Amino acid sequence: MPPLSNYYKVLQPNKQLKMAIKLHCLADVCLIPMGTGSPSISDYIAKTENHIRKSTKVKSTLHSAGTTLSGEWTDVMELIGELHVLNHELGVLRVQTDVRVGTRIDKDQTPKDKVDVVERKIKDIQKTEA
Amino acid sequence: MPPLSNYYKVLQPNKQLKMAIKLHCLADVCLIPMGTGSPSISDYIAKTENHIRKSTKVKSTLHSAGTTLSGEWTDVMELIGELHVLNHELGVLRVQTDVRVGTRIDKDQTPKDKVDVVERKIKDIQKTEA
Amino acid sequence: MPPLSNYYKVLQPNKQLKMAIKLHCLADVCLIPMGTGSPSISDYIAKTENHIRKSTKVKSTLHSAGTTLSGEWTDVMELIGELHVLNHELGVLRVQTDVRVGTRIDKDQTPKDKVDVVERKIKDIQKTEA
Amino acid sequence: MPPLSNYYKVLQPNKQLKMAIKLHCLADVCLIPMGTGSPSISDYIAKTENHIRKSTKVKSTLHSAGTTLSGEWTDVMELIGELHVLNHELGVLRVQTDVRVGTRIDKDQTPKDKVDVVERKIKDIQKTEA
Repeated sequence: MPPLSNYYKVLQPNKQLKMAIKLHCLADVCLIPMGTGSPSISDYIAKTENHIRKSTKVKSTLHSAGTTLSGEWTDVMELIGELHVLNHELGVLRVQTDVRVGTRIDKDQTPKDKVDVVERKIKDIQKTEA
Repeated sequence: MPPLSNYYKVLQPNKQLKMAIKLHCLADVCLIPMGTGSPSISDYIAKTENHIRKSTKVKSTLHSAGTTLSGEWTDVMELIGELHVLNHELGVLRVQTDVRVGTRIDKDQTPKDKVDVVERKIKDIQKTEA
Repeated sequence: MPPLSNYYKVLQPNKQLKMAIKLHCLADVCLIPMGTGSPSISDYIAKTENHIRKSTKVKSTLHSAGTTLSGEWTDVMELIGELHVLNHELGVLRVQTDVRVGTRIDKDQTPKDKVDVVERKIKDIQKTEA
Repeated sequence: MPPLSNYYKVLQPNKQLKMAIKLHCLADVCLIPMGTGSPSISDYIAKTENHIRKSTKVKSTLHSAGTTLSGEWTDVMELIGELHVLNHELGVLRVQTDVRVGTRIDKDQTPKDKVDVVERKIKDIQKTEA
């Protein structure tokens, strides 16, 4: 497979983009290769996830309904774009992705922080119910 | 908090629904209470998740961008509806939920199965790349 | 194509569901038939949309990224379930749907109301900017 | 309101991004300002939509459950990032967006094309059913 930068139709020297959006975001991504002829897509998802894990700027956590990416806005969104390019390079004619992306400026929070605080509060609720 | 069945405006004896859809589904749910006045919603999410875990019919797995529900269609969708009712009972005036729901008739697959097969294939890819 | 109620594996007499959730909701639905062998899915979408329009309980508006359904929770969610059953009956082995569903108890609002209020406010903004 | 480029914490000269992803995409966007204290968000949505319509590179169509953006990947995703920055500038502490984004390399298709082909096929179905 050629490197993504060889995909001449989709990648070009970027003259317009003078500024990057550095806002931190959490983006939960569910990518679906379409028209592959099989209901099983794990071959594509494994290659997609493998590409994500090579990123030095974006952190990721795989779960059963997608992958949660964590990083700066431009880095995260360019990475998701690379995933579409990658799947097209693998022969997929159409790719559909659902992204749930959140930003907040009141505090920093990792994906693990979010789960931990909810689990702790559930324990508190269960104590009062017991 | 009163039991959900007391919420007279939203729950009524079900005369129409003679059939339940027994098709198995995986539904990844991200619920957002709106207009609560605070960007932090973990109190609501903890009560929501606590209600989910009381279900005897629907299994769930919490992650940082939502919860994955597993069960029969009607059971899962009625449970998500209960989560909206629950949040309204807690005083939330508007609730918005994103649901990614999948059904397949070629094979059974748990959320854990889905992650395991992708992780195994990533290991295979990394061997060939090494 | 047999009527949905003939699809013995997924529809059964509903003994458990004694109550229907009457809460009104707006649900924006984007359904993807998977593993069909072609990137074009408009044949399936047309049959899906045609089924939606036969509903006497749920109203719908088609747009380029999905269909917005309006009705009572249980009616809407059972209809979406029927769409999965329908696609499976058409031979689709796997169906993935993204649903954005909202409920609010402070006021009634149709899909058209939502667009109208935003368009009116945009006009006001443009007057102050002019 | 200051121009977006003044928002020093989130916009910085972009040294890394040498290439833009020129792949064409359709992105359906549903943005939710969180923690605003009111269930009504149309003031924010109007300002958000007004900003979208100033874009010279990205086309948009408003509907009741979001806005469909059409353009090159990097342009579309940077625009969505600007929408988050804009809402934070308006005082919103947390912004959550659901994006359904699709790319295809087999043919060009506008949002209107997608609706037209489905409507035409529904007419054909209804003729055979009549």
